[in-house]
Amino acid sequence: MSLFLSVVPVGRAAEIAKNLAAPLPAERVPLDEALGRVLSADVASDIDIPGFTRSVMDGYAVRAGDTAGASEASPAMLTLTGRIRMGAAADHPVQPGECTYIPTGGVLPGGTDAVVMAENTEPFGGEILIKKPVADGENVIRYDEDFQKGETVLGKGRRLSAQDLGVLAAAGCAEVPVTKQPRIGILSTGNELVPVTATPKTGQVGDVNSFVVAAFIRDHGGISVPYGIVRDDRAAFSAALARAAGECDAVLISGGSSKDDRDMTADVIAGMGEVLVHGIAIAPGKPTVIGRAGTVPVIGLPGHPAATFVVLVAIVRHLIDGMTGNAAPDPVTVPAVLTTNVPSTKGREDFLRVALKDGMATPLFGKSGLLNTLARSDGVLRVPAASEGFEKGSRVEIILW
Amino acid sequence: MSLFLSVVPVGRAAEIAKNLAAPLPAERVPLDEALGRVLSADVASDIDIPGFTRSVMDGYAVRAGDTAGASEASPAMLTLTGRIRMGAAADHPVQPGECTYIPTGGVLPGGTDAVVMAENTEPFGGEILIKKPVADGENVIRYDEDFQKGETVLGKGRRLSAQDLGVLAAAGCAEVPVTKQPRIGILSTGNELVPVTATPKTGQVGDVNSFVVAAFIRDHGGISVPYGIVRDDRAAFSAALARAAGECDAVLISGGSSKDDRDMTADVIAGMGEVLVHGIAIAPGKPTVIGRAGTVPVIGLPGHPAATFVVLVAIVRHLIDGMTGNAAPDPVTVPAVLTTNVPSTKGREDFLRVALKDGMATPLFGKSGLLNTLARSDGVLRVPAASEGFEKGSRVEIILW
Repeated sequence: MSLFLSVVPVGRAAEIAKNLAAPLPAERVPLDEALGRVLSADVASDIDIPGFTRSVMDGYAVRAGDTAGASEASPAMLTLTGRIRMGAAADHPVQPGECTYIPTGGVLPGGTDAVVMAENTEPFGGEILIKKPVADGENVIRYDEDFQKGETVLGKGRRLSAQDLGVLAAAGCAEVPVTKQPRIGILSTGNELVPVTATPKTGQVGDVNSFVVAAFIRDHGGISVPYGIVRDDRAAFSAALARAAGECDAVLISGGSSKDDRDMTADVIAGMGEVLVHGIAIAPGKPTVIGRAGTVPVIGLPGHPAATFVVLVAIVRHLIDGMTGNAAPDPVTVPAVLTTNVPSTKGREDFLRVALKDGMATPLFGKSGLLNTLARSDGVLRVPAASEGFEKGSRVEIILW
Repeated sequence: MSLFLSVVPVGRAAEIAKNLAAPLPAERVPLDEALGRVLSADVASDIDIPGFTRSVMDGYAVRAGDTAGASEASPAMLTLTGRIRMGAAADHPVQPGECTYIPTGGVLPGGTDAVVMAENTEPFGGEILIKKPVADGENVIRYDEDFQKGETVLGKGRRLSAQDLGVLAAAGCAEVPVTKQPRIGILSTGNELVPVTATPKTGQVGDVNSFVVAAFIRDHGGISVPYGIVRDDRAAFSAALARAAGECDAVLISGGSSKDDRDMTADVIAGMGEVLVHGIAIAPGKPTVIGRAGTVPVIGLPGHPAATFVVLVAIVRHLIDGMTGNAAPDPVTVPAVLTTNVPSTKGREDFLRVALKDGMATPLFGKSGLLNTLARSDGVLRVPAASEGFEKGSRVEIILW
């Protein structure tokens, strides 16, 4: 049976895209360049964190037992023996009946096990009046309480956030093992396309999608490599695809919205490798092609801007994640209440652009060729293939763009 | 009254931070470098989009009236007069009783007003059988339906997404007017700090926060400029702050978690300009300083990692938005159901780290000096100052990190 006739379910197409992707090799990058990169291996801490028991308050390091029963009316009185300096250990241990001034972050001196907040104390000559008891361990972070030496602090497949860089810094990971960033070529096809810098004549349109695709790739941790506009000429197209496939880890073909273009895209991919999917049960975005040129994954995107974006979110994301090893769960969804009925055809996953406001989702029913509905939308409502749609007032989950 | 004694509400502190920020001047950047930048002016379309009425289907361009009443049993029969080529206008108009093959994206020829999908037709000699009627305008995007020439396509203050780049591309905006990226200096203070590449001795800790701060700045559209670690020495600190303030649009001071450090930070800022806030009614994050060195905004961040991150989200974000002119609404929140009671002190905004799973939010009650709870959290629950907390099972909004 011709692949052209068999439309593939979205989940299956995403799986095929992900399986086509070979995980990229690892490299080490300096910590300050690791934001948004994906860990290629578990990272364990080099050291115990913290490496010493430290105070989380400005106050007095004490033996908790010495403060038992202390109150405003009947404070405990401890002899002040000194002051902890930041960045250095105490010179001598604290004896029963004594205390030491300690700043936030200071090392607890030997003999002490808790810190009394300065607010709950009062100096009295060379003594300190303690007006509130503390429990053992109060107002301190104990040695290795955060992470233990050798413990995995962040796991393989984690896409690194700002907070994660802090964890790696604390773990002593100055160079981070990450997967290489996928280089993804973008080839625009279509005799109607002109560069954005040109003024389109009647019948021509600016090469809009390639900018959207490039930005999506960068947002998702890849490097976009532009190959410009190729005319609908089989030899020129084959040559451009061969070059892009030779230089990149994957190639996305943008444009080519007519059936002739799509057929040519599929034929050229087939001639250089294999077409695995030609048509997905998704709306918008049905005329998507997934295949490979040699071993390099190639996806032919639909021509309409909104359809392109839906396929980036539903399919291409999985290809990129497959290459980077990103183990992140599905994209963020937010619940919302539908403001209108949403009919849908069974057997096809519909991705409907919606605008979100105050927890209400309003579908933007514009044609998928319109950019303004895409720009006004905050995300998409996915209507599963088995569903005939949702009624007004339904609680639904919106995938944020 | 000493500023040190008066703790400022979070909303007021955020407003002060935003007002301190001078909006940065505009510059023009190539479209493919505009992702994440903020528009400095409204962008109007140079052209009508589309510039011609075009088909959104592969099929036949017709006069809708010619298809009235057509059905499987009784198709309309139209004479095929040719084929529209992509990227070019039709040679001749279509007369009543005629049709022309048109690919998706093709220019509707004169005389036609709708497109019949190829699936609803059948060739019959030189004629085309039309088996389903179409309405005027069906399966076409009309001239200027998306955007009209001179119409604002995206407004000043918009932070540009991948989709937005598509809209700008269509509007013929090859160079985009954006505000300059704020250069934000990061100065770390504290005698306990050592570079991440060093192995901390007892009492020392790696300079963790500066990595978190730098990544947050980059995530939010700024350029982070590292100034390294300065010892707790007033002259050295003043000199470093003067240099950073001279070279940057704002300065963040990281570390300095003890009261002595905080006082020195405030004193040094006061000596070079003014301290506007010394203490915010926020937990964690109370010991935050907001001021200016000359006219350059300076924020002294709290020392604990989780406190730093909360202050970045609650305060520093507004400073950056003030400089870029980002008009985006508050950060994305998702509703969730609390798995435990959350007590809170009235008069103070609590920001509680939470882990999200299947719509349930579990507070991570760890000390704000711990990194592992920060890394395990998906966002924060904000408990307003007027609230005494939330009960288990409450529906709350979580601010995603």
